[in-house]
Amino acid sequence: MNDLHALRPDDSQPTPLYLQLARNLEAAIHAGQWKAEQAMPSERNLSEMLGISRVTARKALEVLLDQGLIRRLQGSGTFITPRLEQPLSRLSGFSEMLRLKGFVPSSQWLEREITLPTHEELIRLGLSPNDKVARMKRLRKADDTVMAIEMSTLPASIMPKPQVVGDSLYEHLDSIGKPIVRALQHIQAINASDEFAALVGIPSGTAMLLMTRVGYLEDNTPIEVTDTYCRNDYYDFVAELRR
Amino acid sequence: MNDLHALRPDDSQPTPLYLQLARNLEAAIHAGQWKAEQAMPSERNLSEMLGISRVTARKALEVLLDQGLIRRLQGSGTFITPRLEQPLSRLSGFSEMLRLKGFVPSSQWLEREITLPTHEELIRLGLSPNDKVARMKRLRKADDTVMAIEMSTLPASIMPKPQVVGDSLYEHLDSIGKPIVRALQHIQAINASDEFAALVGIPSGTAMLLMTRVGYLEDNTPIEVTDTYCRNDYYDFVAELRR
Repeated sequence: MNDLHALRPDDSQPTPLYLQLARNLEAAIHAGQWKAEQAMPSERNLSEMLGISRVTARKALEVLLDQGLIRRLQGSGTFITPRLEQPLSRLSGFSEMLRLKGFVPSSQWLEREITLPTHEELIRLGLSPNDKVARMKRLRKADDTVMAIEMSTLPASIMPKPQVVGDSLYEHLDSIGKPIVRALQHIQAINASDEFAALVGIPSGTAMLLMTRVGYLEDNTPIEVTDTYCRNDYYDFVAELRR
Repeated sequence: MNDLHALRPDDSQPTPLYLQLARNLEAAIHAGQWKAEQAMPSERNLSEMLGISRVTARKALEVLLDQGLIRRLQGSGTFITPRLEQPLSRLSGFSEMLRLKGFVPSSQWLEREITLPTHEELIRLGLSPNDKVARMKRLRKADDTVMAIEMSTLPASIMPKPQVVGDSLYEHLDSIGKPIVRALQHIQAINASDEFAALVGIPSGTAMLLMTRVGYLEDNTPIEVTDTYCRNDYYDFVAELRR
């Protein structure tokens, strides 16, 4: 049992109790107090252990629901959403980010092959029509939850044997002296195809985020095109903008 | 009639002709040679005027279609998509960006009222439950095409009369000595509701990008929450990532 008492709101403060509790719960979730898909304490639990009204507990949980931090499953309570905050300024690894949130990252390979590039890959990677590419497709998981489908394409000249890549593509590229130091990422919304919906466990047609990244070496050669189809309810892409 | 001859591919170069033509057309589109929703020269036109085969012209247009720069309307040819490239690092105005692309920006107000904040606005703007907010909803257009639906909420203490805001919210805030200098933007994919689909002219359920921005004053006070529902085919959000 987690120590809930630290979450108790302070009624000497002017901020409404439910908002205090919502903020405390939010901080606890970000600190990794609960695992992906783990059940949250119920309304009744919170109310009894913290000595607050059930209305206060309910309103606090509603704030977390609104923020997408938890979700309600019919008849079985509320559960932690494995939510991955990704800053849109830093090339941060999926695994690294998940570990910071207290989740266990993993990959499941679907495909690793040498093949011909598409039009777009050909342009983006500056290849000749006869050049081959390595194409790698995998599911990316947090604990046991599928967060995204990732498809990476690299020139076969750089990646002749895609089977040797482990959990981290970038660590592999570092190890062969081809570190990617910069990337351009385009963001789109797409409707999940039947295939992708089945792979990530959502209804067909659900809106997903598609991140298309082109990764560059220090000398500005593009060597990576990666399409990541992200479950929208699990990803929180954030950019800081300045004038 | 535009001068198409500058687009002619050079057959002394090793790059395939269709790729050269695609790149030349892309550069011409980015330079604003055609307007939003204007017809592109047809396959036959390109082939005759540039002295290239129809296959080359077709393949070049296919590359542009793949990139979302143009789209094909059944029986009536291909048209320029009013595509707005938005860097995710700079707080750049919608109007300013569109003008740079050769489009004419405009707004159509749907709603401007003083009302009560939602839970989320209350938290994000650090308000008390009894504080009021100004809520403003509008369509944002390029030439005559609806690109996005935008809903902004500001504390009524800062924006007591939302009717006075002109085309640019940020210019208005500058003029009253409350310039927004920094913003945090979250990006999600959503399925268009019936209402939004009708407003922007897409089938209900189509994936759209939802940008949620919180804008801050120099002293870090949050004074703006804006939700922008973007037509995915018109926006190209780009982030540059570094390791």
